[in-house]
Amino acid sequence: MVPRVASASRPPAGASLPPSTVDCIIQKRDGGALAAEDIQRLIAGFMRGDVADYQMSAWLMATYFSGMSLEETVALTDAMLRSGLRLAHERNALPKVDKHSTGGVGDKISLCLAPLVASCGVTVPMISGRGLGHTGGTLDKLEAIPGYSTRLSPAKFQSIVRRIGVSIIGQTEELAPADRRIYALRDVTGTVPSVPLIVASILSKKLAAGLDALVMDVKVGSGAFMPDRRAARELGRALIAVGAQLGLPVRGLLTDMSTPIGNTIGNALETREAIDVLTGSGPVDTVELTLALGAQMLVAAGSVPSLELARHQLERALSSGAAAERFARMLSLHGGDARVVEQPSRLPRAPHRVALPAPRTGFVRSIEAHRLGELAVALGAGRTRADQAIDPRVGIELCVQRGSAIERGAPLGYLHLARRGAAPALVATALAAFEIGRTRPRVVRRVIEQL
Amino acid sequence: MVPRVASASRPPAGASLPPSTVDCIIQKRDGGALAAEDIQRLIAGFMRGDVADYQMSAWLMATYFSGMSLEETVALTDAMLRSGLRLAHERNALPKVDKHSTGGVGDKISLCLAPLVASCGVTVPMISGRGLGHTGGTLDKLEAIPGYSTRLSPAKFQSIVRRIGVSIIGQTEELAPADRRIYALRDVTGTVPSVPLIVASILSKKLAAGLDALVMDVKVGSGAFMPDRRAARELGRALIAVGAQLGLPVRGLLTDMSTPIGNTIGNALETREAIDVLTGSGPVDTVELTLALGAQMLVAAGSVPSLELARHQLERALSSGAAAERFARMLSLHGGDARVVEQPSRLPRAPHRVALPAPRTGFVRSIEAHRLGELAVALGAGRTRADQAIDPRVGIELCVQRGSAIERGAPLGYLHLARRGAAPALVATALAAFEIGRTRPRVVRRVIEQL
Repeated sequence: MVPRVASASRPPAGASLPPSTVDCIIQKRDGGALAAEDIQRLIAGFMRGDVADYQMSAWLMATYFSGMSLEETVALTDAMLRSGLRLAHERNALPKVDKHSTGGVGDKISLCLAPLVASCGVTVPMISGRGLGHTGGTLDKLEAIPGYSTRLSPAKFQSIVRRIGVSIIGQTEELAPADRRIYALRDVTGTVPSVPLIVASILSKKLAAGLDALVMDVKVGSGAFMPDRRAARELGRALIAVGAQLGLPVRGLLTDMSTPIGNTIGNALETREAIDVLTGSGPVDTVELTLALGAQMLVAAGSVPSLELARHQLERALSSGAAAERFARMLSLHGGDARVVEQPSRLPRAPHRVALPAPRTGFVRSIEAHRLGELAVALGAGRTRADQAIDPRVGIELCVQRGSAIERGAPLGYLHLARRGAAPALVATALAAFEIGRTRPRVVRRVIEQL
Repeated sequence: MVPRVASASRPPAGASLPPSTVDCIIQKRDGGALAAEDIQRLIAGFMRGDVADYQMSAWLMATYFSGMSLEETVALTDAMLRSGLRLAHERNALPKVDKHSTGGVGDKISLCLAPLVASCGVTVPMISGRGLGHTGGTLDKLEAIPGYSTRLSPAKFQSIVRRIGVSIIGQTEELAPADRRIYALRDVTGTVPSVPLIVASILSKKLAAGLDALVMDVKVGSGAFMPDRRAARELGRALIAVGAQLGLPVRGLLTDMSTPIGNTIGNALETREAIDVLTGSGPVDTVELTLALGAQMLVAAGSVPSLELARHQLERALSSGAAAERFARMLSLHGGDARVVEQPSRLPRAPHRVALPAPRTGFVRSIEAHRLGELAVALGAGRTRADQAIDPRVGIELCVQRGSAIERGAPLGYLHLARRGAAPALVATALAAFEIGRTRPRVVRRVIEQL
């Protein structure tokens, strides 16, 4: 290997001048910590156009390699927050709490969680994202509901939140615009997987939304953004530490993302499963995750003193139908067809349903979330570039979970396809994601630990 | 520190497709080696505009951190060479050899070396650079000669080289244009000090000039680009290895750059000193370096079998006046005033000359090249940004070298100033670069070793 040479960073022209953009890049490259005001100047300069895209991307790559101190991460988050509008904390209003997940496969939790928590008296102004790569996005799932609009102005969003305590929209231009521009750059320059950059991206948007508290679902495993537990834990702890410095209490759960969540992957399929959870018939792991995160949200909001009491309250809201009703009201106010709650068959459906026959008898030992996430993209349920269109109907339906006993030839699940043409190849790809063995594997719970 | 997370590089969309730009960035970020065709595609895409500046700068920063294999460095050099015109090797012509220095303070060697070597029957088509930061540039020094033009077309350059065996011009748009664009990006993104990037930058231009051999002057010490000997040696060896792979024999010397070369820093002052070398009266170290590099060039060209014989031939060319005469002819053909060779007083001169009195009696133990290089920039002899104008008249003249005995109050040197205003502060800055002690330091020779 031809290594890099010892760095010869040039001294600033005048000792009293603030460091130039290239000085900031060199300082970060050489492992130094930037002053808060230098980070503020860098981000403000980038938004004004004084700091070029190519300088920002070099700085992002230097940050990828050199990391950031807590103070720097706080300063970056704050600078990105200051790049746009900040929705006001309203006095005497109900506490506002959001949940954010680092992204997974089959993760439809937000759809059932937000109205459930709102029906327990906590406001949930949720700003969500779209799917990219093997991970899905809440906005795509909601848009599977005929008429639902995720593009509302901040004023309209706030008015729905005031009225029914919950609304789910997409990121707007007005909140933390620096994050949008920086994320777009990270996406095409290989600088996404950096803890401080992820922390600043998430928290700047959440702070701009005027939250009182945030609950993080940090996913770990093959289907997650971060495969290993140590890195996921570090991300969770950094989110908590930076949130604390900026006045946003953050609670978090580390959750397992090695198998898909629930029984569905694909937008209309997942929305249907979320409705199942709200109406009392969802898969056990999906319900478990919803209740665990919901309890964290109620406690974070200060509305319930313990996780146990919170859980009881959430279970009541599910069984009473209050949560499902809140979901229906949210759909109506977003222009969506609220009848899907009672009649999920109104959701769009793919024309072809092809079985995935088990190649042998035994126990399902693993279902690789990452592979099925990629297969769902190939079916048209997701995208590899932000500008690609998706098909809400297609996806994967599972009949088994890890630990299920299966007979040879019985369906492990079904592919929901727009066209039947490539079915044999797609079935083979899907089957490769299942491992079937002779012994039952040990149970893995979704919630690994509280951060 | 908030570290980076384990990388989750995304697999390419189709296994048979070449990796996308972001895949190439991620591969380099994660320490992988890119295939030669991927590097070729990256550089060609950058020149076409398909690879954005912000992707190139992220890739450059990833390369800074991850380094490059020999094969990758060869591929990058070749890709940059292919971005433009390549001057032909002419059959039955005299061998063409150039010298390239990694940059120093007071380095006027090219001015005397090129005509000297040409007067010994070796062709020297020299493509030089401008000063930046504390290091000077040959073009700026030549432009101190009234009328001398460094901007000639490749055709005019080749015609002068054919006629008198030597010409010194600036980098042209036609040769290795990718290097110009990439260097401009490196300069503002903190990605200059990377061995593979330096190697590709130097060799792509030299290969484009159609050389038969190259001699490298790799400088080391406080006034050099690379302060430590290990890194300098690695650069030298990488240049030799990559040159060999691409059919360009490279020889190199590691030379000391802890004190300024010769007695002058500043453009007209240095040109005058180069003329002194050509006419037999230059400082010992400047003559030593000129002869050492010149001997390497004659041997590299294959025109003399040994360094010792080469040295004799060079000394004869100096004492006979042949070298000085060749210099005068080059000046004329470039539109310059050739009378400066006989009458150096025709060179521009600063209006003010201010002494630097020794603060105590003793021996000069060190003269910090870096500090004096920066002072020269502050006087107006250099630039911190590529678009700044310089004043050819100003600079620093030294009356001592390392090891000289000095009496308190006697001049260590003189500042040549355009304005007298800031003189006291400038004198104080200059004096801080000298260390005077009680004992004579051991002698340090310019040439440390052959690479």
